[in-house]
Amino acid sequence: MPPPVAIQALIELALAEDLGTGDLTSEALFSPTRRSAARLVAREPLVVSGLWLAEVIFQRLDGRCRVRARVDEGAWVRAGAVLAEVRGPTRALLSGERTALNFVRHLCGVASLTRSYARVLAGTGCTLLDTRKTTPGMRALEKAAVRAGGGHNHRMGLFDGVMIKDNHIAAAGSIARAVAAARRRVPPTVRIEVECERLAQVEQAVRAGADIVMLDNMPPARMAAAVRRVAGRARTEASGRVTLARLAEVARTGVDYVSVGALTHSAPSADIALDFGR
Amino acid sequence: MPPPVAIQALIELALAEDLGTGDLTSEALFSPTRRSAARLVAREPLVVSGLWLAEVIFQRLDGRCRVRARVDEGAWVRAGAVLAEVRGPTRALLSGERTALNFVRHLCGVASLTRSYARVLAGTGCTLLDTRKTTPGMRALEKAAVRAGGGHNHRMGLFDGVMIKDNHIAAAGSIARAVAAARRRVPPTVRIEVECERLAQVEQAVRAGADIVMLDNMPPARMAAAVRRVAGRARTEASGRVTLARLAEVARTGVDYVSVGALTHSAPSADIALDFGR
Amino acid sequence: MPPPVAIQALIELALAEDLGTGDLTSEALFSPTRRSAARLVAREPLVVSGLWLAEVIFQRLDGRCRVRARVDEGAWVRAGAVLAEVRGPTRALLSGERTALNFVRHLCGVASLTRSYARVLAGTGCTLLDTRKTTPGMRALEKAAVRAGGGHNHRMGLFDGVMIKDNHIAAAGSIARAVAAARRRVPPTVRIEVECERLAQVEQAVRAGADIVMLDNMPPARMAAAVRRVAGRARTEASGRVTLARLAEVARTGVDYVSVGALTHSAPSADIALDFGR
Amino acid sequence: MPPPVAIQALIELALAEDLGTGDLTSEALFSPTRRSAARLVAREPLVVSGLWLAEVIFQRLDGRCRVRARVDEGAWVRAGAVLAEVRGPTRALLSGERTALNFVRHLCGVASLTRSYARVLAGTGCTLLDTRKTTPGMRALEKAAVRAGGGHNHRMGLFDGVMIKDNHIAAAGSIARAVAAARRRVPPTVRIEVECERLAQVEQAVRAGADIVMLDNMPPARMAAAVRRVAGRARTEASGRVTLARLAEVARTGVDYVSVGALTHSAPSADIALDFGR
Amino acid sequence: MPPPVAIQALIELALAEDLGTGDLTSEALFSPTRRSAARLVAREPLVVSGLWLAEVIFQRLDGRCRVRARVDEGAWVRAGAVLAEVRGPTRALLSGERTALNFVRHLCGVASLTRSYARVLAGTGCTLLDTRKTTPGMRALEKAAVRAGGGHNHRMGLFDGVMIKDNHIAAAGSIARAVAAARRRVPPTVRIEVECERLAQVEQAVRAGADIVMLDNMPPARMAAAVRRVAGRARTEASGRVTLARLAEVARTGVDYVSVGALTHSAPSADIALDFGR
Amino acid sequence: MPPPVAIQALIELALAEDLGTGDLTSEALFSPTRRSAARLVAREPLVVSGLWLAEVIFQRLDGRCRVRARVDEGAWVRAGAVLAEVRGPTRALLSGERTALNFVRHLCGVASLTRSYARVLAGTGCTLLDTRKTTPGMRALEKAAVRAGGGHNHRMGLFDGVMIKDNHIAAAGSIARAVAAARRRVPPTVRIEVECERLAQVEQAVRAGADIVMLDNMPPARMAAAVRRVAGRARTEASGRVTLARLAEVARTGVDYVSVGALTHSAPSADIALDFGR
Repeated sequence: MPPPVAIQALIELALAEDLGTGDLTSEALFSPTRRSAARLVAREPLVVSGLWLAEVIFQRLDGRCRVRARVDEGAWVRAGAVLAEVRGPTRALLSGERTALNFVRHLCGVASLTRSYARVLAGTGCTLLDTRKTTPGMRALEKAAVRAGGGHNHRMGLFDGVMIKDNHIAAAGSIARAVAAARRRVPPTVRIEVECERLAQVEQAVRAGADIVMLDNMPPARMAAAVRRVAGRARTEASGRVTLARLAEVARTGVDYVSVGALTHSAPSADIALDFGR
Repeated sequence: MPPPVAIQALIELALAEDLGTGDLTSEALFSPTRRSAARLVAREPLVVSGLWLAEVIFQRLDGRCRVRARVDEGAWVRAGAVLAEVRGPTRALLSGERTALNFVRHLCGVASLTRSYARVLAGTGCTLLDTRKTTPGMRALEKAAVRAGGGHNHRMGLFDGVMIKDNHIAAAGSIARAVAAARRRVPPTVRIEVECERLAQVEQAVRAGADIVMLDNMPPARMAAAVRRVAGRARTEASGRVTLARLAEVARTGVDYVSVGALTHSAPSADIALDFGR
Repeated sequence: MPPPVAIQALIELALAEDLGTGDLTSEALFSPTRRSAARLVAREPLVVSGLWLAEVIFQRLDGRCRVRARVDEGAWVRAGAVLAEVRGPTRALLSGERTALNFVRHLCGVASLTRSYARVLAGTGCTLLDTRKTTPGMRALEKAAVRAGGGHNHRMGLFDGVMIKDNHIAAAGSIARAVAAARRRVPPTVRIEVECERLAQVEQAVRAGADIVMLDNMPPARMAAAVRRVAGRARTEASGRVTLARLAEVARTGVDYVSVGALTHSAPSADIALDFGR
Repeated sequence: MPPPVAIQALIELALAEDLGTGDLTSEALFSPTRRSAARLVAREPLVVSGLWLAEVIFQRLDGRCRVRARVDEGAWVRAGAVLAEVRGPTRALLSGERTALNFVRHLCGVASLTRSYARVLAGTGCTLLDTRKTTPGMRALEKAAVRAGGGHNHRMGLFDGVMIKDNHIAAAGSIARAVAAARRRVPPTVRIEVECERLAQVEQAVRAGADIVMLDNMPPARMAAAVRRVAGRARTEASGRVTLARLAEVARTGVDYVSVGALTHSAPSADIALDFGR
Repeated sequence: MPPPVAIQALIELALAEDLGTGDLTSEALFSPTRRSAARLVAREPLVVSGLWLAEVIFQRLDGRCRVRARVDEGAWVRAGAVLAEVRGPTRALLSGERTALNFVRHLCGVASLTRSYARVLAGTGCTLLDTRKTTPGMRALEKAAVRAGGGHNHRMGLFDGVMIKDNHIAAAGSIARAVAAARRRVPPTVRIEVECERLAQVEQAVRAGADIVMLDNMPPARMAAAVRRVAGRARTEASGRVTLARLAEVARTGVDYVSVGALTHSAPSADIALDFGR
Repeated sequence: MPPPVAIQALIELALAEDLGTGDLTSEALFSPTRRSAARLVAREPLVVSGLWLAEVIFQRLDGRCRVRARVDEGAWVRAGAVLAEVRGPTRALLSGERTALNFVRHLCGVASLTRSYARVLAGTGCTLLDTRKTTPGMRALEKAAVRAGGGHNHRMGLFDGVMIKDNHIAAAGSIARAVAAARRRVPPTVRIEVECERLAQVEQAVRAGADIVMLDNMPPARMAAAVRRVAGRARTEASGRVTLARLAEVARTGVDYVSVGALTHSAPSADIALDFGR
């Protein structure tokens, strides 16, 4: 399938902000008929995600561009690995180079950081989730990069899951009323999660019929107590500044899920270049 | 002035990916008439950039939202500082919270990282530049964040500056021919930069009439030699994985500019929250 | 909040297809300064939905138009009831009249038909659901009209619920494998429904962990047997050409939900007119 | 020719409201390389319209989809008839199924209802017209469906015909002045119609040079009198809640045209399914 | 009413092509709070059209801009006349100046040229028409400028009038068949024009029921003969490189209309400036 | 490469304003399968520009259309020359004819007028520049037409060059301060031009470090004096109502550039037709 409309729109914005009224240098120095070949090369070890965007971007500039991926989504590669081979009119390759790299480097960065977290959780029975703390316009891409890195997606947005917080509870009067109100309004296919900071809230949420209980910023001991209190009556999610260093400890509390915002909001760019053949 | 069309378009994408068919939780639990007040609060020391976007985002959801900034673009603030006060219908504030934070946290992150680089260059006569290695769709915003952090902008894209690289030189036959060809094509208001790795290229570029000479990935000694060779006949720019640790050494070579991609492609998100009053 | 982007886009399409290069008649015959008042009047008994769109439409043509609703979303009104008072420049009122009526008449039609179904289910413990058989571009509006009429929404689309059908089961190898595969991929906030035609499938679906079992085109006796077999281990939904005449019988089988496509795909337009004052 | 921009835009809205962030079920259960074949089948007798949209919709999701129509626009088919054969990647077929059906079922519904009206008028010399009472966004499609059903189109919108009503006459001072004012403003290629409720108005309209006289909500006897009064000096159109039952009687008055809003605003959806091969 | 969507879209294109990533000069030199006043001044005698666009353009850049027109659409003014007073933030006025002038100067140019043609026809009974030879994107604006200049509009496009030419006649087999085929397809509100080069065609067209006969590139004597032959059975239009010098002669042939493409495709820009106060 | 997004958008606007709800005539008279061949023919001597748009436009209507250019961009051709051969479905050719001609005729008009100016400057060492006085939406196309005609482009917009005028100087306090402020803000790749009316300003501008000095509306003697004063310290541009008659005299003053707004704002349309084969 082609990229969804929203991703196409982001690509248009990205190309427009770089190309503006045209690539002065390439237009001045290359004839429209000149063609080139190049390679996308990893300059450091990384996990691959989003390579397919390179073809979309280069073809947007010139339908004759071709990108052949040499590695799969989710693959771990060493420094020096060729990620893809790119061919097409020289002008299009040079005009699209920076935009393609800006996408791919960022997404490989997200996948690579996710992989480092996911490894810690391997075998623990605890699932790594992402959050809605994503880069504006890139949520679907970053959530795919999280999957490529070995993580799992939490809800995509405000529309496919209910998350009841302090404000909602205060407005409804109690956790029980808030859960009941949400249940009346939302489709039967959507689950309800309640954010809890204290054990008393956890018990109330479970009794109110919450499907998932979020344990927000709890110290590990309290988190473990909360998991025991829930006792399988709902699923449990640990949330709140979980660093790589704290991850194993959190998993040992027995929570079903741990969600980590940094996967998408603070992943450093992976070092990838487009090397032109001579 | 209102945000340019491209920034509005990115905001639409960001709101759409989060809101989709609606904020199930807020619609179920708050009446449309309920109003709230909240504060954007820094959870760590940071440099401010992009606060104005919060108002654009909340007003896009409900024209009655108001955001009053309490700090200026470019200000350095301590942890705990109130960045802005936000008022409006509760549904709009909760529905827009994550999108507003995703923008502002990222831009403050860019400004804060830039500030740490800019401080090293203070008083050296060397100017800190950003690059085109920006987040897709956010170039204008990130470049403004660089200015807020104390950096200076390099060209905005492929349209307002000429950058002649290896490929172009090979196609034209020589640096002299490449510069001449570019000069014939581009508006008289646009300058021409030539990327050089060796000293011989530097001399050729200056003689060809290059306005700026980029010293790409040169070790400091060679860079200093290049600056001496240029001897004011053109401006000089250091480029290529310049880290914070190497920055002072690069400045001492006497280059006019140093450009740093990490300012925009690898800045960690600044920790900012929206705290609702009770 | 303003109408979501998608609804604004549909309004633009609707206005464009009616206005094209302009309202020849009104431009020829009314000065731009002339103003009028008019009333939206029900010509038959109906349930109200979507009146708010009238204001959006008239204001799109001229920001000075005002629409004051006289009845609430979901209200039942008699023939002759005034639904809203409309004021503004005459040209804008006449140019927007047909588009506003085309929206409001259709949505009141959906709400009114839904009300007739919902009444039959009142007190039965069975909930009336809509489907994805909606008018292209109008899903969110029609689903709101269903709620106004006393129905409840099923999933909004393919993104906020999983529905496993024959094809999916065949591809996965078994119901159990299909449910497990879906569970791995979808956010923890989303439920899984399995479409079943035979009792054996119902049992498999429940054992596989399906959250909801759809009883597709089952005769009432088999449906009742299916409900007994499920025995509360999952929710049950009756589906498949449920007419108003068959509705009570379906409810007596004990299913939790009954979904009716006709609510949105075959509701006749409600008779509403815009009467201008003299 | 490809579909006009406005129809493409409606298809985008329709796909977006159904697909949102993705078809969870199909993405979880089918590999991207799996392909399927299916048939669009009529479940009841119907008149065909808009089949070509199915290909546009499936190809929008995946350019490799193919739809081969087996019946022509305007054909009457029996229950069980195969309307088209569809082939392509399984994911695209399942993701596009509901959107394609929502379009085609509605348009076949309009064509089928129109056919039942058109048959009554066959041989009477009276032409069946549609109105501007169409579904928002679908006017061009519904008007094509009316033609497929054997009806004829009235003006497409406010821009290709003048319709002078009470309000306009009051503003201009008289029918004569209103017609003259319109004549001065509109292109020579556009005709002027005047809406009349009484015989006196009919005479004034004809004398003013109206090209068409609309006989609005007149009882048959008065309508016949009006037609005699006009005596060929203009064309005549009967309008106002003309039901199938009253149609023959209206035609016998001798009017040139009869316009029926129900063709487009209240046609029930035709029953069509997409049956997948095994 | 606000400008139609298509005109807003053209304004967006025009602003985007001038502003791109920003007005470097104004942003560098004026604080956002500085305000200015200026006047739109005619530098030569001209007929006014499209002044209202200036306000739309300046307000698009900053909602606080105000433009007060001092002359009416269609007015003739001397050199030195103040057309409008403009106030607002200095940055917005300078950033929008060129775009506003590019629109207004062109439209006043069209209106002024039209006035010179219209004067020649005054009192002749022959009406001056424009054509579809307009500037891409500006048809509605240029056709309004023609009206401001004293001309009359021909059809707006291919959708509100039928024009049968050689190709159509050849395809249909005869003028009579072509006219009949068109009559069957088009709304009753739309007229049919037939392009004729010879007298025999004129007679055939009239007999076929053409509403308007276009006399294409006929010498005056043949044109006069054609008008006599038509003898009021249809309207007549002279077309084909009618210059200002030939206009009176064409009018004397007795044609009802004369259409002139140059009004819109070759009008020189009117000289108008934006003078800032000190 | 495909046309940039902005040009595609303008083509959409142009097609939409002509086609609206459809080409009534062609749809009524040609079957969708009929195909035709035609030729774009010059009816007067002209310089070619923008022929490639014809293919984009016809293919937008039907992907099977083909346009083979017979002459190059920038070529001078005699009356009667075939510019291109066009083939495709008859409906698409007729529906796109006017839009294609409106683009190509205008751009050839601009190129032809530019050629007449450029010839006068040949061999003088003075370069002909265009301005920002372009037709809304067509800047990139018109600037390409200027190059085709032998001219050179000035800055594309407000974003790729700085132009300091009276207002800016007054706001900054002096020319020196204005230039310094601009230098701080703009990328190092962008040059600064200062508009001067008097010799004293010229000297100040050069000393302030202006890269280009614009000599605005200066009589030739003063312009020559200004050029001598600058003495190669900056480039010089003559501006202000330079007619073809005055061009040689201006060049003799020794200015580097002369900019002429009329090239783009007042070029008459070139006479080109689409002749269909029989």
